[in-house]
Amino acid sequence: MEDKLNTLKSKLKQVHDINAASAVLGWDQQVNMPPGGAAARAEQLATLNKLAHEIFADDAIGLLLEDLAGAGFDYDSDEASLIRVARRDYDLARKLPPELVVDMSRTFSLGQQIWTKARADKDFAQFENVLTKIIDLNIQKAEAYGYEDCIYDALLNEYEPDMKTAEVNRVFGELRATLAPLVQAIASAGEPVDDSCLKQDFDEQAQWDFGMQVLKDIGFDLERGRQDKSVHPFTTSFSMNDVRITTRIYKDMFNTALFGTLHEGGHALYEQNVSSTLEGTLLAGGASLGVHESQSRLWENVLGRSRPFWDFYYARLQDHFPAQLSSVSVDTFYRAINRVERSFIRVEADEVTYNLHIFLRFELEQALVEQRLKVRDLPAAWNAKMEELLGLTPPDNALGVLQDIHWSIGVIGYFPTYSLGTVLSLQFYQQLLDDVPDLPEQFARGEFGALLDWFKEKIHRHGRKYTANELVERVTGATRIEAEPYLAYIRQKFSEIYRF
Amino acid sequence: MEDKLNTLKSKLKQVHDINAASAVLGWDQQVNMPPGGAAARAEQLATLNKLAHEIFADDAIGLLLEDLAGAGFDYDSDEASLIRVARRDYDLARKLPPELVVDMSRTFSLGQQIWTKARADKDFAQFENVLTKIIDLNIQKAEAYGYEDCIYDALLNEYEPDMKTAEVNRVFGELRATLAPLVQAIASAGEPVDDSCLKQDFDEQAQWDFGMQVLKDIGFDLERGRQDKSVHPFTTSFSMNDVRITTRIYKDMFNTALFGTLHEGGHALYEQNVSSTLEGTLLAGGASLGVHESQSRLWENVLGRSRPFWDFYYARLQDHFPAQLSSVSVDTFYRAINRVERSFIRVEADEVTYNLHIFLRFELEQALVEQRLKVRDLPAAWNAKMEELLGLTPPDNALGVLQDIHWSIGVIGYFPTYSLGTVLSLQFYQQLLDDVPDLPEQFARGEFGALLDWFKEKIHRHGRKYTANELVERVTGATRIEAEPYLAYIRQKFSEIYRF
Repeated sequence: MEDKLNTLKSKLKQVHDINAASAVLGWDQQVNMPPGGAAARAEQLATLNKLAHEIFADDAIGLLLEDLAGAGFDYDSDEASLIRVARRDYDLARKLPPELVVDMSRTFSLGQQIWTKARADKDFAQFENVLTKIIDLNIQKAEAYGYEDCIYDALLNEYEPDMKTAEVNRVFGELRATLAPLVQAIASAGEPVDDSCLKQDFDEQAQWDFGMQVLKDIGFDLERGRQDKSVHPFTTSFSMNDVRITTRIYKDMFNTALFGTLHEGGHALYEQNVSSTLEGTLLAGGASLGVHESQSRLWENVLGRSRPFWDFYYARLQDHFPAQLSSVSVDTFYRAINRVERSFIRVEADEVTYNLHIFLRFELEQALVEQRLKVRDLPAAWNAKMEELLGLTPPDNALGVLQDIHWSIGVIGYFPTYSLGTVLSLQFYQQLLDDVPDLPEQFARGEFGALLDWFKEKIHRHGRKYTANELVERVTGATRIEAEPYLAYIRQKFSEIYRF
Repeated sequence: MEDKLNTLKSKLKQVHDINAASAVLGWDQQVNMPPGGAAARAEQLATLNKLAHEIFADDAIGLLLEDLAGAGFDYDSDEASLIRVARRDYDLARKLPPELVVDMSRTFSLGQQIWTKARADKDFAQFENVLTKIIDLNIQKAEAYGYEDCIYDALLNEYEPDMKTAEVNRVFGELRATLAPLVQAIASAGEPVDDSCLKQDFDEQAQWDFGMQVLKDIGFDLERGRQDKSVHPFTTSFSMNDVRITTRIYKDMFNTALFGTLHEGGHALYEQNVSSTLEGTLLAGGASLGVHESQSRLWENVLGRSRPFWDFYYARLQDHFPAQLSSVSVDTFYRAINRVERSFIRVEADEVTYNLHIFLRFELEQALVEQRLKVRDLPAAWNAKMEELLGLTPPDNALGVLQDIHWSIGVIGYFPTYSLGTVLSLQFYQQLLDDVPDLPEQFARGEFGALLDWFKEKIHRHGRKYTANELVERVTGATRIEAEPYLAYIRQKFSEIYRF
């Protein structure tokens, strides 16, 4: 049995190394690559992905996993977890016909190119044909994976293992019941928030320096990671000892760089603090996209947009930008970075309206893969939903249905994890406050160690061992994802900020 | 036959893509990687290298190559060249026992780590054991490859295909007969050159900006490449449309950054200008290390350290550094960048003494693999040769036998290609001057297009199709590498500079 486990580990390690190499190529593509490199890079990535799939989906791994299924390791052990998660990944990989894998890879690559141009031209018609094919391929993929309740389950499962559409519906229903009227209340009854202090001329180098300082303070290990700039901020890792994040800096808008750094920093802390016993295995990394997003949202919003955080940092920020901020009070600044505004673009949305953007996508995705909605009718459906949820109609498709990259690269079923992560961040954080009641006072002293240590112990070190629901139960004792901690947090925070 | 060729191409493309991915990982390792990433990166590279070797050295490729051997393509065609060079690479790959490949990979990785510390500690004893093993592995490798005249031939062949030790001896003999007395003459009879103007405080950003301008001017395509900084400057490419170079900048020494940029720029122009019909095949890239070095040395020295070049650029350089250079004449500056000095460190050596450093390494390498010299006795042998060739004895081993990385990473047989390249650069350049007699006048006007176009046509576009000797014959009509053009160039240039 020992021999078989070692053989399995060695085969999986090879796949892991190839995937890590792909991640390096992907990082370079977004951070450094000159335009001329694009064509060759796409081929290099296709070759690596094909190789990794071939080695992983091989019969030999299936036989090893069968032999090892009854090996009797403790459920929580590294060994049992490796066998369990490998089995899950393997079953998915085996269900996809190789021709479908190739067809998806080609179409999604093409999709992104076409979408980029269509968005620039604000012209959905250019994108319609390839999106139709992308939806069709996702339906084929879902059918290949199989499902019990509804087709969307099969897609969601890839990003959020074992999560069901019905479960997402329950959580989102609770969110919507509170958030929609809250947005109305803020707009009609709240004391207006002025965020003009954030829209001044902020020197790029000073923004970078401040962000790097905060990144170090929250515990990002620069010996085992780095930050760069890219058009779209992201986190990737090639090892728990080499975690890369990126940010982007706008001279005329303060929020983008710092909160981007905190968001990606939250992802990165998760990746850096997986147990070293899992290094180089498929258990290194985050449990799911939702759990990953719980970390990024927590460091960005629950910490980074909190009053105690700025009680500590604001004087330091004023030192970086005396001309811009010396006459702005911390109260004004704090309210400004938390301004709630109904807007067209998801990635720029505040903590309150953000989830409404997700509901829209979640509902449209289901309608598309259930073939209740034709791609041709998608822009109209998008605009109707925007009106229903946010009371806005996009002036063009670039500010509407064409704004996100996800569908163009074939990703359907991913969006809900953003809101699940937001909800999870507060469900975990409520437990943390029970365990460490003086945490906000620590933040106000610039002490972030207890925050990180708690998450290391409860979440990070386990890597991919547990699903989101398993983690919720282990960490909080609850048997399911609960929206209430998040809703209570939102109600309290924003009724204070908007003074009603 | 068409089918077999396509099958071969498709298999080779896979190997090419994996090797390109390895190159990206290697570039990132030297340019960006945080220290923590080293261990995982070494394993990722080992996995990719093993995979590439397995796919390439497979029986199937041998059978295809046999079937295609009689396909009747014209020798100069892309097809015949691909089959011919693939055969050469394949035969080498097949001769190495897999255990030896693994043993070398591990030992050479270890060797570099041990060498880095030994050099820092100036302590050869730390390095002795692993170097002994490295020499032994190189002997095993050479025996596996096989050879006719001498064991060194088998090692040299890896870096300079079809080159023989006897041929190198002939060329080096001619060089030595002229260069040793010339160095003496300069030291004893030359009018001293003062290079203090190069050792001032040069702003790093201004050095970078000037170097980037020159890089663009000589024809480096920034849409298909980029320059970064690294500890050791190098060139790598992931495609002819994505060629990366690095430089390093010293605030207190002008030469390092600019001539580093020109040197790597020369390599990069070669890589960027291989015929696009060879993109993605094993013919993309340089013919040999020697031919590659002929390009770097040409752009660095024959162009970059020439008087016409500075007749054009010196006023521009003064604009970048008015405080440092406005009172320094172009004549003083030109003599300073060409100062000849017997020194300990190869990479800092001038055009005249550089080759003496190579002779030393070439002779010691042969003595080691022929087992006439024990590793234990290497430092003494090094110092004796330094005294013989340059009249100097290193004060410690960091300035002597420990200075170069090559042996620590298992590379034996590489050094002679530096001098062969230097010689080749002038053999080609003499022909170019016959074809374009007003070239120096073009340089003095800042026109470098004719230089690049000639090399594109004569050398670059062919990629790996021809060996160095084949290129010499095609380009110059000579039947072998000739030292005389280089020696004539050196005699004329330095008798003028040293006024004797």
